[in-house]
Amino acid sequence: MDAMTSQLSAGPRLEVHPDRMLPSDPALRSLARELYESVRALPIYSPHGHVPAQWLADDEPFADPTSLLITPDHYVTRLLHASGIGLDRLGVGQTTFGPGQSREAFRTLCAHWHLYRGTPVRFWLESELAEIFGLDLAPSAETADALYDAIAERLATEAFRPRALYQRFGIELLATTDDPCDDLRHHARLAADETFTGRVVPTFRPDAYLEPARADWNTRIDRLGEVSGVDVDSYAGWVAAMESRRAYFTAHGAISSDHSHADARVEPLDDAEAERLYALGRHGAITPAQADTLRRAFLFEQARMAADDGLVLTMHPAVYRNHHPATFAGYGADVGADIPLQVEFTRAVQPMLAAFGTSPGFHVVFFTIDETVYARELAPLAGFYPSVFVGVPWWFIDAPDAMARFRSSVTETAGFTRTSGFIDDTRAYLSIPARHDLSRRIDAGFLARLVAEHRLSMDEALQSAHELVTGNPRRAFKL
Amino acid sequence: MDAMTSQLSAGPRLEVHPDRMLPSDPALRSLARELYESVRALPIYSPHGHVPAQWLADDEPFADPTSLLITPDHYVTRLLHASGIGLDRLGVGQTTFGPGQSREAFRTLCAHWHLYRGTPVRFWLESELAEIFGLDLAPSAETADALYDAIAERLATEAFRPRALYQRFGIELLATTDDPCDDLRHHARLAADETFTGRVVPTFRPDAYLEPARADWNTRIDRLGEVSGVDVDSYAGWVAAMESRRAYFTAHGAISSDHSHADARVEPLDDAEAERLYALGRHGAITPAQADTLRRAFLFEQARMAADDGLVLTMHPAVYRNHHPATFAGYGADVGADIPLQVEFTRAVQPMLAAFGTSPGFHVVFFTIDETVYARELAPLAGFYPSVFVGVPWWFIDAPDAMARFRSSVTETAGFTRTSGFIDDTRAYLSIPARHDLSRRIDAGFLARLVAEHRLSMDEALQSAHELVTGNPRRAFKL
Amino acid sequence: MDAMTSQLSAGPRLEVHPDRMLPSDPALRSLARELYESVRALPIYSPHGHVPAQWLADDEPFADPTSLLITPDHYVTRLLHASGIGLDRLGVGQTTFGPGQSREAFRTLCAHWHLYRGTPVRFWLESELAEIFGLDLAPSAETADALYDAIAERLATEAFRPRALYQRFGIELLATTDDPCDDLRHHARLAADETFTGRVVPTFRPDAYLEPARADWNTRIDRLGEVSGVDVDSYAGWVAAMESRRAYFTAHGAISSDHSHADARVEPLDDAEAERLYALGRHGAITPAQADTLRRAFLFEQARMAADDGLVLTMHPAVYRNHHPATFAGYGADVGADIPLQVEFTRAVQPMLAAFGTSPGFHVVFFTIDETVYARELAPLAGFYPSVFVGVPWWFIDAPDAMARFRSSVTETAGFTRTSGFIDDTRAYLSIPARHDLSRRIDAGFLARLVAEHRLSMDEALQSAHELVTGNPRRAFKL
Repeated sequence: MDAMTSQLSAGPRLEVHPDRMLPSDPALRSLARELYESVRALPIYSPHGHVPAQWLADDEPFADPTSLLITPDHYVTRLLHASGIGLDRLGVGQTTFGPGQSREAFRTLCAHWHLYRGTPVRFWLESELAEIFGLDLAPSAETADALYDAIAERLATEAFRPRALYQRFGIELLATTDDPCDDLRHHARLAADETFTGRVVPTFRPDAYLEPARADWNTRIDRLGEVSGVDVDSYAGWVAAMESRRAYFTAHGAISSDHSHADARVEPLDDAEAERLYALGRHGAITPAQADTLRRAFLFEQARMAADDGLVLTMHPAVYRNHHPATFAGYGADVGADIPLQVEFTRAVQPMLAAFGTSPGFHVVFFTIDETVYARELAPLAGFYPSVFVGVPWWFIDAPDAMARFRSSVTETAGFTRTSGFIDDTRAYLSIPARHDLSRRIDAGFLARLVAEHRLSMDEALQSAHELVTGNPRRAFKL
Repeated sequence: MDAMTSQLSAGPRLEVHPDRMLPSDPALRSLARELYESVRALPIYSPHGHVPAQWLADDEPFADPTSLLITPDHYVTRLLHASGIGLDRLGVGQTTFGPGQSREAFRTLCAHWHLYRGTPVRFWLESELAEIFGLDLAPSAETADALYDAIAERLATEAFRPRALYQRFGIELLATTDDPCDDLRHHARLAADETFTGRVVPTFRPDAYLEPARADWNTRIDRLGEVSGVDVDSYAGWVAAMESRRAYFTAHGAISSDHSHADARVEPLDDAEAERLYALGRHGAITPAQADTLRRAFLFEQARMAADDGLVLTMHPAVYRNHHPATFAGYGADVGADIPLQVEFTRAVQPMLAAFGTSPGFHVVFFTIDETVYARELAPLAGFYPSVFVGVPWWFIDAPDAMARFRSSVTETAGFTRTSGFIDDTRAYLSIPARHDLSRRIDAGFLARLVAEHRLSMDEALQSAHELVTGNPRRAFKL
Repeated sequence: MDAMTSQLSAGPRLEVHPDRMLPSDPALRSLARELYESVRALPIYSPHGHVPAQWLADDEPFADPTSLLITPDHYVTRLLHASGIGLDRLGVGQTTFGPGQSREAFRTLCAHWHLYRGTPVRFWLESELAEIFGLDLAPSAETADALYDAIAERLATEAFRPRALYQRFGIELLATTDDPCDDLRHHARLAADETFTGRVVPTFRPDAYLEPARADWNTRIDRLGEVSGVDVDSYAGWVAAMESRRAYFTAHGAISSDHSHADARVEPLDDAEAERLYALGRHGAITPAQADTLRRAFLFEQARMAADDGLVLTMHPAVYRNHHPATFAGYGADVGADIPLQVEFTRAVQPMLAAFGTSPGFHVVFFTIDETVYARELAPLAGFYPSVFVGVPWWFIDAPDAMARFRSSVTETAGFTRTSGFIDDTRAYLSIPARHDLSRRIDAGFLARLVAEHRLSMDEALQSAHELVTGNPRRAFKL
């Protein structure tokens, strides 16, 4: 890399300090560094994410810096949008986006680098530039082209193909997120490919099939019936079809199902009422309130299936999807216009935990962007129920200060063992190592403080740091 | 103690650092240590707790380590339960639990000591081992039997009887929590016993009598009528019976009434509607919504009585009791399956404060596990109403980081004088000194920061540290 | 000043440390001091506040210390009230309050100085004493008279007239808060006065005209019709009258409209329903729920007008006004008895942002006392919508630790550029420099930590510190 790096034109240097994100106090820094170093190079478990399996199955080179680093990453595009840059200029939702546009988008990002001060996006991208691409120029209007060319040059090489990066990143397990009707062909190809030694597993994500108020619900249910070969014209049929597809996913290596609805409620219905509402939904005659009721019963069924088939149930509730209708119309979903909502768990999940909370096969991980539930609800739940794990900070709060708040809020009630282990939940493949690295740094800083305040011995902290990276995800996700 | 200690077998040493829980920064540590030392040995006021008065009245030796330290303490048992240990193995809800089982339960705790890393349970138990029992072995599978035997040996001695410990702990006042129909015989015995110089006072806890939706409500009200000698077949009778029992408690030294319902609402009803709902309740024909309305009116009556008779009203609202029905069926209440709920105070208590907020005799202390209300609602209320005090962190958040967040959230709006003083709220008698000690350490750390940031002089900080331990509980609880 | 100061009687010295409120850690302190020094003397933009324009138009000397520093400042009076001092003793709501009473009120404040430990009130008042009045005595019972006399003496001098202080404070812009029917004569006088070189602008504050459930609503609407010369007997007339008054305000220099209602909901109504509810309101026959519906539609109209006329829309929602009715009856509004409520933004403002969120002329600033929405809702909204800015901490949370929590909660999602810049929102004219100074200190401390943790370079931090004081308010408020 050094040779490539030296070819870059002059400009502000990129400084990626080895101790970045560790506490600044010298005594804490020293402890944190030792803790961080002890886990820095451990393998990556990524039990929840959004990288397409096809990338690894095909192992084609990435096309260009912008389509890899900017366009699909709503963390990156949203702050540019907030500063007046149209999403179209960043390639979002564009059917064609030529090399000139791609380069221009990259220039736009670099010229607005100051927008990311204090955000984790900066940490991720700078870590990628320095540690994956071996570059030492700070992004700016003047360095944009040099950076673009250097990245493009590297992406064309064998070392930057998806599988080579998978090895280099030290990934032990990578979970994708998939539609229940997906045939998982790419997962099957990877499993059958002896030249690929990694582990890429699907995740069962049936959200759209649980929301009868959606315009596309009946079409999706029809398709569910076709794919599963089960008659879905009854609630019982829906259940059987879901069981069939979960079995298909399990057979393809799935370890979890993931669920994201407007609230966290999970509530059973008696059979007759379930059938009645289901019929209304199938006839397009269901009210929004009835659709919510049915959705909560559908989710209860998923929990029951989870207790039976052992798939870990993960919940990412309470997001207002596509908050800006014009953006949705123009650019589609997942472009940065999803906004979190307040959430409630204690009452919402009580029926589920009353039924399955101590079932041996049942594991549930609760993720939240509403930090108020960590100390108030999730830590108390996970500190009692053997099935419950507190998910680490997700999405907007997958960030250094928020991670520190998370440990401070959860640990005093639930300790370290009842948390999920880090998940990156990202579409940005190249950011995976940086995301896990950031988590390890912050946890090291938190543990360092406990040692410095004589709450833990250093031996214990070293052991817990290791557990958070390996034991916790393996236990929560049954790896 | 040293002789006893030296008899213990080798194993990992228990390190109980004198500066534990103080800030790690050297300058802050030095200030905090001075502040902490200035209050370390001050007497303990415990105006809200759950130790049985009978223990002190009988002054019998404690039976064994497990029934003292594990079985009744849901802080301890719940994390073991979350890790797959059945509550029966810990003695919870067991009618017989022999010496072998007791020892095995203690081994289980010690073997799972890592679960408590980062939790206050660890601080409390380690402080008890070191400072009460004089032991220097860290709990682990290999040290469990030695610790068990050493504790058992000490518990059999005179120095570890309840009254001796009361003296040794420096307790100035200890409040119990009692049913309104309790005859308070143990309190009377203690008051009449000239050999006991402590002060043990009852607390009026009428929750069950305010909830007409409970299955046992009518039975309880019948009993209330019998005990009070008042006809309780009308709302007015209920009120008169309550007044009678409050007077009985006051005559036996009570300083407060305590109330814990699903929400914080306190709302008057006109007499006719109150009588109507009460009659429905007495006939078992009240709806859940009506029961809530009546409960809020009952609580308003308690507030009115408090303004008259001067008992401090404390509220601990918004907990989902017995969240896991199977655990409740198998093991009963208060075994760690209560989960906090979001709470709202500003609207909820407005009718009460409109009526009594500036009444000279009225004091109310609001406790919460929902930390969001500290800065938003409780500090603004206590910073205006002379009757309102912000309760210190309670239950799950009676923990170091949470305590620090509490001071940071409340002080900027309400200062130090409007907070309640520490309450331990515990069934774990031996943890009382450690709990108060922890609070003093964290407050010392908070004050040290204000001094180091030139917000307070050291003289002021020393004075405020002293007030938080003595003046505040005496003022809030009218001691 | 020194000569005056030296005349004061002995007593505890007032220590106003130059580094106060900066982090105590030596390395952070040094960085923070450099950052703070770089912005300390920059001009003050005050785009939202409550100082009367008449003070500057008349430029009369302030009457006495109490009527300037105590009586109108509910931050000061509320903590005294909570400690049992009647508001009448502080001059609140008194038609006559003689020199003896004024001096006695000042003595009361000084004798209760310990109440303010840990609050920003102490920082503000001490900064005023030291830096505006040049005094070095700490307030106490024994120094009260000397302080009172020294302040009174200074207030009588030319240097302490409102305009002289305006210059001395370095104010670049000062916004007042005004009723839509106000003729803004004082603003006009100031604009026409060539001897005054400052910029004092009105703010359009139409709350009372948007709440048809208020007893005075119809009277106010009648007056709106008279002042605007528009027939307000229809919803369309209300809209036209508002447009007229907004134009009047804009012509007098207004930069924003401000809105504070019980919730944040902004929702359009179709014309027929709007006219129907409006007619009900005009006939005094509107229900509370209908009044809420109409109020939300009125606010939607204000947003539409803002997108047209360019006035920045600021929202300060979710406060329970006049929580204690007896205090309201005896002393009126704005005397410290307003208590914050929980708030929700994501759903509440969606209709407004769906309509105007990307309109070029539309700016909205969301303020909150409910800190839970910073990370969960406001930062995600401001990180996507170009029109949305996160307002800095307001009212009770305009305080050091709360400000630090704000930056920690908002920055990781929205960066620095999407925040509003500091607003003082105060009636206490002399506290304006101290309030802005405090904000600069806390932001310096936050940035210093990012530098010390290698998240930002010092050059970037210096630039961002400068932007927070100048660029951010200018951009958010279009100055």
